[in-house]
Amino acid sequence: MNHSQTGNFNFEPDNLSIPSTHKKRIVIIGGGFAGINFVEKINTKLYQVVLFDRYNYHTFQPLLYQVATAGLEPDSICGPLRKVCKSKKDLYFRMLKVQRVDTKEKRVHTLLGSLEYDYLIIATGAKTNYFGNDNIEKHAFPLKQVVHALELRSQLFQLFEKAELRRGTDEVDRLLTFVIVGGGPTGVEMAGALAEMKKHVLPHDYPEIDFTKMKVYLLEGVDRLLPAMSESSSESSRKYLESMGVDVRLNTFMKDYDGRTVVLDNGEEILTDTVVWAAGVKSNIIDGIDADLNKGRFHVDEYNRVYAPGNQSVYENIYALGDVAFQFSEQYPNGLPGVAPVAIQQGDYLGKSFNRIAKNKEVRPFNYLDKGTMATVGRNKAVADLPLNIRFSGFIGWVTWMFVHLMYLIGFRNKLVVFVNWLWSYLNYDRGIRLIIRPAQKNWEETDELIEKSLQ
Amino acid sequence: MNHSQTGNFNFEPDNLSIPSTHKKRIVIIGGGFAGINFVEKINTKLYQVVLFDRYNYHTFQPLLYQVATAGLEPDSICGPLRKVCKSKKDLYFRMLKVQRVDTKEKRVHTLLGSLEYDYLIIATGAKTNYFGNDNIEKHAFPLKQVVHALELRSQLFQLFEKAELRRGTDEVDRLLTFVIVGGGPTGVEMAGALAEMKKHVLPHDYPEIDFTKMKVYLLEGVDRLLPAMSESSSESSRKYLESMGVDVRLNTFMKDYDGRTVVLDNGEEILTDTVVWAAGVKSNIIDGIDADLNKGRFHVDEYNRVYAPGNQSVYENIYALGDVAFQFSEQYPNGLPGVAPVAIQQGDYLGKSFNRIAKNKEVRPFNYLDKGTMATVGRNKAVADLPLNIRFSGFIGWVTWMFVHLMYLIGFRNKLVVFVNWLWSYLNYDRGIRLIIRPAQKNWEETDELIEKSLQ
Repeated sequence: MNHSQTGNFNFEPDNLSIPSTHKKRIVIIGGGFAGINFVEKINTKLYQVVLFDRYNYHTFQPLLYQVATAGLEPDSICGPLRKVCKSKKDLYFRMLKVQRVDTKEKRVHTLLGSLEYDYLIIATGAKTNYFGNDNIEKHAFPLKQVVHALELRSQLFQLFEKAELRRGTDEVDRLLTFVIVGGGPTGVEMAGALAEMKKHVLPHDYPEIDFTKMKVYLLEGVDRLLPAMSESSSESSRKYLESMGVDVRLNTFMKDYDGRTVVLDNGEEILTDTVVWAAGVKSNIIDGIDADLNKGRFHVDEYNRVYAPGNQSVYENIYALGDVAFQFSEQYPNGLPGVAPVAIQQGDYLGKSFNRIAKNKEVRPFNYLDKGTMATVGRNKAVADLPLNIRFSGFIGWVTWMFVHLMYLIGFRNKLVVFVNWLWSYLNYDRGIRLIIRPAQKNWEETDELIEKSLQ
Repeated sequence: MNHSQTGNFNFEPDNLSIPSTHKKRIVIIGGGFAGINFVEKINTKLYQVVLFDRYNYHTFQPLLYQVATAGLEPDSICGPLRKVCKSKKDLYFRMLKVQRVDTKEKRVHTLLGSLEYDYLIIATGAKTNYFGNDNIEKHAFPLKQVVHALELRSQLFQLFEKAELRRGTDEVDRLLTFVIVGGGPTGVEMAGALAEMKKHVLPHDYPEIDFTKMKVYLLEGVDRLLPAMSESSSESSRKYLESMGVDVRLNTFMKDYDGRTVVLDNGEEILTDTVVWAAGVKSNIIDGIDADLNKGRFHVDEYNRVYAPGNQSVYENIYALGDVAFQFSEQYPNGLPGVAPVAIQQGDYLGKSFNRIAKNKEVRPFNYLDKGTMATVGRNKAVADLPLNIRFSGFIGWVTWMFVHLMYLIGFRNKLVVFVNWLWSYLNYDRGIRLIIRPAQKNWEETDELIEKSLQ
């Protein structure tokens, strides 16, 4: 990188203002579930730690659909990363995207300079996978980041305003049709939330619109919803959604979408302005690491060390955690699932492991403890598969879902505000937050770039 | 307007999907304090009412500075206008900007068509006044809308991230300097909030930054802060701010600002990336009304009817309320102040007056009841001038300020969430909301335009 290009570049660029100490330096990329749990556990008396993230906040992704459907403020499900970091000395945060790694020089490179590491931990998570379909990437709404949720919220409420002005025309049918692709938790929860809004919120707000015309489709490629859960939970969630009026299509793929017309694999067409794409993710791989990839993820051993190509040896100082890591286990021959609990436990595990290494204690391999899987469909309607074959559904499943999600939210303020909002919505059949604060357009990549460039 | 230009324009454009009834139609432009209080009071069994606003929400402007300084979520201080409207039949909301009025044809015109009125109420409020200085308009941050507050919040936190990366350079001084222009409530409250963040929040978040370098200037053109309040309140607020480290400059004007250098009228220069412009407003005048303007506002009589030019006769069917209206009273020979209570009382008054007219009851002239003025400077520091020469300051003033602001917030959910946030901040010396979700750039006008165009 040619620093002379970046203007007033008169500070020392090669350490990003991180001091040198006698301690080993751990660089961790990504402030998601894995990253913040690692940071919480690592003993910074034993190591210097530098956390990189392109945003200045942690996002509680499982609740993004509630931001998109006006149930929660974005601020309630995000935690400032500097707050996560502030309790520890010799722990640094840098709001920078790591562009590439040089494993020989042991350096991470950013737009504003580079930093040497002793240990590198990759916890960059995953992003939306469009499987190469540029049309879908261009026209569909993803739901992985706060900006996505805000765009989708603006889109929804702009459509309803528009539908009211177009009352009595055919266009209204298209405006009030929503197609959600992907029957995993995000798709199921999004479809449920839209169906609830249709029933409880929208008819009050838009009394002139005929909401019997509003249609919510949920498309899933395999033969059941929530394929990672038990068959009975799949079945319950489908029944819940259908009872709420969602048109669930199993064994169905979306072949194409041009912004107006969804084409299904059976040739059927659906006219809609809004496709929510929750059909797949791919890992945020970092350039410059010559590693063994499995399903597009960094293949790691039982200590979360990244395998070199050929799968014979590992990098002793490069680790991967969470969605960006691929780890076998006896129970999971196809790799651990890309879910928050795996990331949380791996971050926690690796933090503790590093502390043990520094004290020359033995390090045990990572062992994933499945505490269960849950998804909520709506008011009093949720499914939960817990260990020992315990399954909840209905009201108890729903209360369990709320309790667990509150527990994992960062910070007491967020827990409290989310709880107040949920209680409010429950008692009032309402969703409080319906602001259109930006035009619905897919400008978030540009947004990210502009934020980063502003730091130059 | 040539409707053929706007694409699929196959609905009836000339009534914006508003049905015709035997009742008189009141069109009200603007969902600010005046607008929503009018809507609350008007009896829609007696009139059909159509409310226009370019946003789909009401903004509680007195708390915008708390959004800008990470104390509150934007959603907590905004109320969806459709929610305000939903309790009444024959009350319609249209998220459209009224572009001009044709007083002869009695029609309001929007991008998507026009609508006839029997009565027109203008409650469009005010916007930032740069007094013709394009440089300032281009480079300073206003604080009148939610988008402004979000831009400013992003700006602040981006600057701190940048300052940390630039540690040890002269640039840091400029990044950590904040100039607020205008010593009214917004300026005083903004300066106080920044000084509080400097003391209680930022040093924890950015332990590497030397915050003794952070400077907050507050410039006021006349010889005291809060010129609309009592001299003792002016004096208290100045002392509070100075005790918190704010550099208060009275009798001082900003001559120019190029995005880097503030030039004062005494020739002094201050280097800064952030100027908050709270130095003046001008009314949002609507085109097409041939009216008597006073100080750029629609001159109205004691019934809030708009004067025709020459000040001899009034329009019998055109009214103006709040910041866009200029109304004399004995106590206020220079016109009622442009503050929320005037707008609230006028909206309330006019709604009731219309109800009386329909029942052939006598209508009394508007009488402004001054319930007092308040401003908060920080934790336990506020000033309040109440009627009967009662003045509070310090802790009691501050509690009074909080209580009154909570009372006027729209909706119980907002009151509750704001209260929880304030309690949290008070107990923890914290500000919870520090997300950078968009680049700081002045793109809001474009944003407004894009939102409106999306409705076509």
